[in-house]
Amino acid sequence: MRIIRTAVEMRDAVEPARNDGVVVGLVPTMGALHAGHLALVRRARLDCGLVVVSLFVNPTQFNANEDFDSYPRNEAHDLELLERNGVDIVYAPTAAEMYPDGFGVTVTVTGLTEGLCGARRPGHFDGVTTVVSKLFAHCRPDAAYFGEKDYQQLKVVERMVLDLDLSIRIVGIPVVRERDGLALSSRNAYLNVYERRIAPALQDTMRAVAGRLSGDVELEAQCRWGRDALLAAGFDEVDYFEIRDSKTLQSVEACRPGLRVFVAAWLRETRLIDNVAVDEVE
Amino acid sequence: MRIIRTAVEMRDAVEPARNDGVVVGLVPTMGALHAGHLALVRRARLDCGLVVVSLFVNPTQFNANEDFDSYPRNEAHDLELLERNGVDIVYAPTAAEMYPDGFGVTVTVTGLTEGLCGARRPGHFDGVTTVVSKLFAHCRPDAAYFGEKDYQQLKVVERMVLDLDLSIRIVGIPVVRERDGLALSSRNAYLNVYERRIAPALQDTMRAVAGRLSGDVELEAQCRWGRDALLAAGFDEVDYFEIRDSKTLQSVEACRPGLRVFVAAWLRETRLIDNVAVDEVE
Repeated sequence: MRIIRTAVEMRDAVEPARNDGVVVGLVPTMGALHAGHLALVRRARLDCGLVVVSLFVNPTQFNANEDFDSYPRNEAHDLELLERNGVDIVYAPTAAEMYPDGFGVTVTVTGLTEGLCGARRPGHFDGVTTVVSKLFAHCRPDAAYFGEKDYQQLKVVERMVLDLDLSIRIVGIPVVRERDGLALSSRNAYLNVYERRIAPALQDTMRAVAGRLSGDVELEAQCRWGRDALLAAGFDEVDYFEIRDSKTLQSVEACRPGLRVFVAAWLRETRLIDNVAVDEVE
Repeated sequence: MRIIRTAVEMRDAVEPARNDGVVVGLVPTMGALHAGHLALVRRARLDCGLVVVSLFVNPTQFNANEDFDSYPRNEAHDLELLERNGVDIVYAPTAAEMYPDGFGVTVTVTGLTEGLCGARRPGHFDGVTTVVSKLFAHCRPDAAYFGEKDYQQLKVVERMVLDLDLSIRIVGIPVVRERDGLALSSRNAYLNVYERRIAPALQDTMRAVAGRLSGDVELEAQCRWGRDALLAAGFDEVDYFEIRDSKTLQSVEACRPGLRVFVAAWLRETRLIDNVAVDEVE
């Protein structure tokens, strides 16, 4: 497994593979890898002849009051996991490599970014789309793999690729969960034992709401119920509990196929997000 | 000469050339071609094995009150000129091809876009960088050619390519002028005989100011003088008359090497822009 730190070296590393028609797959990550990331890696390994995983904690997708400094970093452990999972190249650029002096470009997706996390984390998705378009330019993948846990991010990246005509296939991979239903996230490491016990209420509450949805149910009331249920379970604050269209992420008035429940809530200092497709819930 | 209307066809058309190592050059234009455009084409023809010229009047770089509807269009004439100048491919997509329903991406360059035309035409450069990044994705050039008449645009595109790591060489080509010094522009077609006689004052005034610059001259006063000279010559309004750094486009306090005079002024409904490097003026 090769470890690469510069854009030039990265580009050179994929060039021969591309020229030989080898399919290149990229799994962009911020490190602190868990089984959710490894599901992406395994799928990339199935699909692609050359698998690149990027490790980059991107400062521009964190707001000033967010957890950039404390975000978990453990490169040695990440590299070990990636090696064991058959990754060919790890791309771990420095911030100076990604954002040299005078850097001044932003790639923005409108529409899809307006609600949910976009409303709560101004500039977050601009940071994501900008860094992802740079990672794409460095790694030149044929396919890139994103987890559905960050479902809005997945949709936003799909839109960016479509609108900038990047000819990269974006593959979304279902959420990987703990036995008790908590979605895997690098931020779960922030939770203490007490909070960890409360956290599965996220998925339980979403599924309870999703299971109850049918033609004549008032969505607004269900979301209010979900929000109250989370607070009752011990969450300190609920950023949103919403039901939206899975494709457009638009708010919906009435129940119909193709909906998804989205939630973001705080356990003390830790913000957790999750989502579930209504149609998948029995 | 091949004429292509869709992104898919365009991509397929350059693919074999790229695979054979042929250097691909792109000259992005909004049509209404004049000798300034043809200078770009000739340079591309010298440098490249495959020359693509795009013709696309990009709606997103015009503001609501600007001249998108009246912008000169004459595709038949443009095609004839391009054929005569040895162009291989003309890429003339429709607006629906460039901006399908739900389109929602913007590529923004900050800093360089803040003054000069950026200050007067909000959103203009976002329109430019977004469409250019799409044209780059469709045509996948090794080099792209831009006129220095739109000097700020040239700098902004250079920055975008650098920051998005596009590995495209951006080549700036000096302004082509009429005998009386008026910079060639598709918008010159708007001028009536009376206005056309006034128009060369743009370059005359810039050169007068540039020729006068030395260590102890107050730049601010020179710009005021330039502005007044243009109004006295018959211009109806001066958007800006400024001296800035050629590379950063930042305002400068005192005279030094590497400066450029920038001007934008109105003759009735027609907005003309021009610029000149101070170091080039004797």
